[in-house]
Amino acid sequence: MLGQMMSAPLLISSQIEHAEAYHGSTPIISVNTEGGIEQTTWGQVAANARRLGSALSRLGLEPNARCGTIAWNNRRHLEIYFGVSGAGFVCHTINPRLFPEQLVYIINHAQDRVLFVDATFLPIAVKLREHLPELRHVVLMGPRNEEAAAQFDGLLFYDELLETGDPAFEWPQFDENTASSLCYTSGTTGNPKGVLYSHRSTLLHSFAANTPDCIGFSASDVVLPVVPMFHVNAWGAPYACAMSGTPLVLPGPDLHGEALVRLIDDYGVTLAMGVPTIWLGLLGHARAVGSKLESLKRTVVGGSACPPSMIAEFRDSYGVETLHAWGMTEMSPLGTVNHPLAKHASLPEADQQAIRESQGRPPFGVALKIVDDAGNDLPRDGTSQGDLLVKGPWVLDSYFRTEQGEALVDGWFPTGDVATLDEDGFMTIRDRSKDIIKSGGEWISSVELENIAIAHPGLADAAVIGVAHPKWDERPLLVAVAMSGEAPDEAELLAYYDGKIASWQVPDKVVFIDELPRNATGKVLKRNLREQFADALTG
Amino acid sequence: MLGQMMSAPLLISSQIEHAEAYHGSTPIISVNTEGGIEQTTWGQVAANARRLGSALSRLGLEPNARCGTIAWNNRRHLEIYFGVSGAGFVCHTINPRLFPEQLVYIINHAQDRVLFVDATFLPIAVKLREHLPELRHVVLMGPRNEEAAAQFDGLLFYDELLETGDPAFEWPQFDENTASSLCYTSGTTGNPKGVLYSHRSTLLHSFAANTPDCIGFSASDVVLPVVPMFHVNAWGAPYACAMSGTPLVLPGPDLHGEALVRLIDDYGVTLAMGVPTIWLGLLGHARAVGSKLESLKRTVVGGSACPPSMIAEFRDSYGVETLHAWGMTEMSPLGTVNHPLAKHASLPEADQQAIRESQGRPPFGVALKIVDDAGNDLPRDGTSQGDLLVKGPWVLDSYFRTEQGEALVDGWFPTGDVATLDEDGFMTIRDRSKDIIKSGGEWISSVELENIAIAHPGLADAAVIGVAHPKWDERPLLVAVAMSGEAPDEAELLAYYDGKIASWQVPDKVVFIDELPRNATGKVLKRNLREQFADALTG
Ligand SMILES: Nc1ncnc2c1ncn2[C@@H]1O[C@H](COP(=O)(O)O)[C@@H](O)[C@H]1O
Repeated sequence: MLGQMMSAPLLISSQIEHAEAYHGSTPIISVNTEGGIEQTTWGQVAANARRLGSALSRLGLEPNARCGTIAWNNRRHLEIYFGVSGAGFVCHTINPRLFPEQLVYIINHAQDRVLFVDATFLPIAVKLREHLPELRHVVLMGPRNEEAAAQFDGLLFYDELLETGDPAFEWPQFDENTASSLCYTSGTTGNPKGVLYSHRSTLLHSFAANTPDCIGFSASDVVLPVVPMFHVNAWGAPYACAMSGTPLVLPGPDLHGEALVRLIDDYGVTLAMGVPTIWLGLLGHARAVGSKLESLKRTVVGGSACPPSMIAEFRDSYGVETLHAWGMTEMSPLGTVNHPLAKHASLPEADQQAIRESQGRPPFGVALKIVDDAGNDLPRDGTSQGDLLVKGPWVLDSYFRTEQGEALVDGWFPTGDVATLDEDGFMTIRDRSKDIIKSGGEWISSVELENIAIAHPGLADAAVIGVAHPKWDERPLLVAVAMSGEAPDEAELLAYYDGKIASWQVPDKVVFIDELPRNATGKVLKRNLREQFADALTG
Repeated sequence: MLGQMMSAPLLISSQIEHAEAYHGSTPIISVNTEGGIEQTTWGQVAANARRLGSALSRLGLEPNARCGTIAWNNRRHLEIYFGVSGAGFVCHTINPRLFPEQLVYIINHAQDRVLFVDATFLPIAVKLREHLPELRHVVLMGPRNEEAAAQFDGLLFYDELLETGDPAFEWPQFDENTASSLCYTSGTTGNPKGVLYSHRSTLLHSFAANTPDCIGFSASDVVLPVVPMFHVNAWGAPYACAMSGTPLVLPGPDLHGEALVRLIDDYGVTLAMGVPTIWLGLLGHARAVGSKLESLKRTVVGGSACPPSMIAEFRDSYGVETLHAWGMTEMSPLGTVNHPLAKHASLPEADQQAIRESQGRPPFGVALKIVDDAGNDLPRDGTSQGDLLVKGPWVLDSYFRTEQGEALVDGWFPTGDVATLDEDGFMTIRDRSKDIIKSGGEWISSVELENIAIAHPGLADAAVIGVAHPKWDERPLLVAVAMSGEAPDEAELLAYYDGKIASWQVPDKVVFIDELPRNATGKVLKRNLREQFADALTG
């Protein structure tokens, strides 16, 4: 016997319809690719998304055709998110920081028919074009531009394309399990792999993101997604914020501290989202110019472990609450967010602060478990560490167009992270499984050693890797980047670990380097460091 | 082309599984029917729900069998919510305040096979039994009790029934559109009509309830649902709070101000939910004993229009934010909640306060429109008023087991309320369509006149009805209940309207009465008042 409630598929078009109907005049601030700021509204974005959906349908694309984007966070990109998926095509966001061969691989593997590019990235499109046999249209995200037209034969212009669309276009209704969008993981090895989201998975993820113990976007917030729209859909912010009618500030190409501080102060941003390196720049600039980041109430930090010192600086200097979050491209991406429980309110302040440092706990919809090498469940005691597996309606089932076999283990997705879980489900990432340091049979978390190092005032950045050691197999090596103008020495840095961890965990040595190597999504390439410093303790 | 994400049905069992896995030690406080307080946890509630689901399955009930409850808000009732629906049966909550004939009608119409009753309501079960031919089992919600057993042949006892269940029972997986629960509307006329919710509609409604612009339950709240679990599932709080792992305080039978103030103070309640009459009692008692309701941050007020004076008292005397909400049994029930938009933050304080008085705006998932008598859309200008229609995945499609024909008009559910909508979608209920006063072709909102009257310090309660008038067809009559010890006179009350509304809207007359007649859900029976005072202006 079925319930007797209205049935309505969970479609991305319904999110933008809600924003249009009830938040039509809510502002969207967008920094143009050429600089300068444009102010639009959810109503206008919705109207343009309709036109775009209609225009793409009129181009004669087949259902589910992939439409790629290489673009910054701006309002046209936002319109593309809704116009493409809403009309039944698949929005495929591409990371411009990838190598050209990877871009070619991804675009061909996805079989993109249309490619939307920001002016910044037109040269890439020009260069790659001959390697992209299945691509039909390249659309420059802006008005007609004769100079660009001359560079690229057959180039379409976004603003002209919109004109060909019907403003009264009605969003098609279809199965909510239909593919909506596509993101490739920028693994540190091998070919990138595609994660194909559905309308249903995206809507459920948005609902979860909007719960207060996850991110909890509301229409009284002003949100700055610094995390790029080409990186797991800016952590789902565009979808979730359409649903909650939240004003957005889209920062365009310049993500330096100075530009971000200005946007926060000028537009009264209450909530900003990004990776730790972005916040290092922002905090440095705010300190330098003496901004109090008056309006800012919360930051969401994820993508890499958030150093406790960053949480403390946000809290103590700016009164900003940091939400430490963990996720993956394969998880849409939200897996856990750190929020306290009611019982924590009565703990001493310092204990409450310590609780806020882990990656947090899962929202409804995400299940977590940790297992040992043999796949046996490990206890949730806060100390046993093992491989982390996840499950839920916005977690990947299989990779897009691959013959690499099963992505899951007994129905669970193996994250490649090593973690502990406590009895309340608070999860702490100890390491990527391939980065953990195995010293004489004991495991040492590189993340823990990095968090301590990064709090040292003389360091701008730090990574810890395991390198070969004759007696212990592997021992930790601290790879340090000095703050400009500072020159901390090895003994001082190693002494800094005293009393903070067991002495056998202290790195054996420190090497200095100008900058850490990072991949396209900003993650440190420890593989490269391990090669470079392979002989540091034996050579 | 479908997305490639994990598929998992949206089932009520997944909510309690989440609470069990990640909030197992979170407290549930429950006031016993015989007085006294029991403290349990989400973990224990989940374990008992499993046992109950198993025990009911072993009783040999057919799939989707309806299981009725006549019970207060307590932990066994909570276990029944999840055990019954989780195991694939339908949880049918029954309002004990209905007349015996209505109870018989409802239980037979629902074809209840099992009836769970709190001790308070055993006498009702004894009395009705012979009229309930399809009922198989009556279960007293408590331990074995010989006295009760002697009154009712074959009576089962909840705690014994649980013992027959398997603690390792695995929740069955099935279609998420399966019926989960059933509520009858206690209309003021005609037979009650059943609304049959599904697992999917309940889960989506819970997600919406958990967004910050709706209620936004979180694991750091402590929630007191004063609204009964037999009234639209306590507005969905049990489901939404399981999902967010929120501690609950279940108040049992005594909903007087004194008992509620004590629960709030003793258990640090942060969020309480109920109808306006409940809060009148609570505020009166808090004032009398000088409680500052220290822990309380928010109240959700709905079910009838919340008088602005109540919002002001909560705000000014206790620093409590009132969330004025509107909904219906047919809407699971949440339709709108009043939360500000980002742009409101820069308005003068008084304007911000005024905005908070309406019934608010719809969350994602609910669409609203107002139409004139001919069914034409009316503008969203804040002044045009018309019949309110709604649509969405947790809105009724058709009533349970009825041949009364279509419940919808062109796919929209007509609420029977008359409302205005402004351009941001803020909705103000002007009246039930049958209660609005039509004076010389102009409409007068009884709600508006009541809100003003109730703010008068000499009145404890007030209703305004339209009564026949020789010249104007209908004119407003104020039916007033004086505060004990006060004796405001007619002239004084009518003068109180001066400057607050147009003079032609001021009631023609005041009549005094000891108590307003109310139906089983606490709504004023204006029909009765209209009969009683039919000749007030002509006689
Ligand atoms: N906040 C509110 N203001 C005015 N009327 C309300 C409010 N909430 C609920 N109602 C009334 O209660 C009806 C639903 O009753 P019920 O189905 O018993 O919950 C609605 O159609 C409204 O007439």
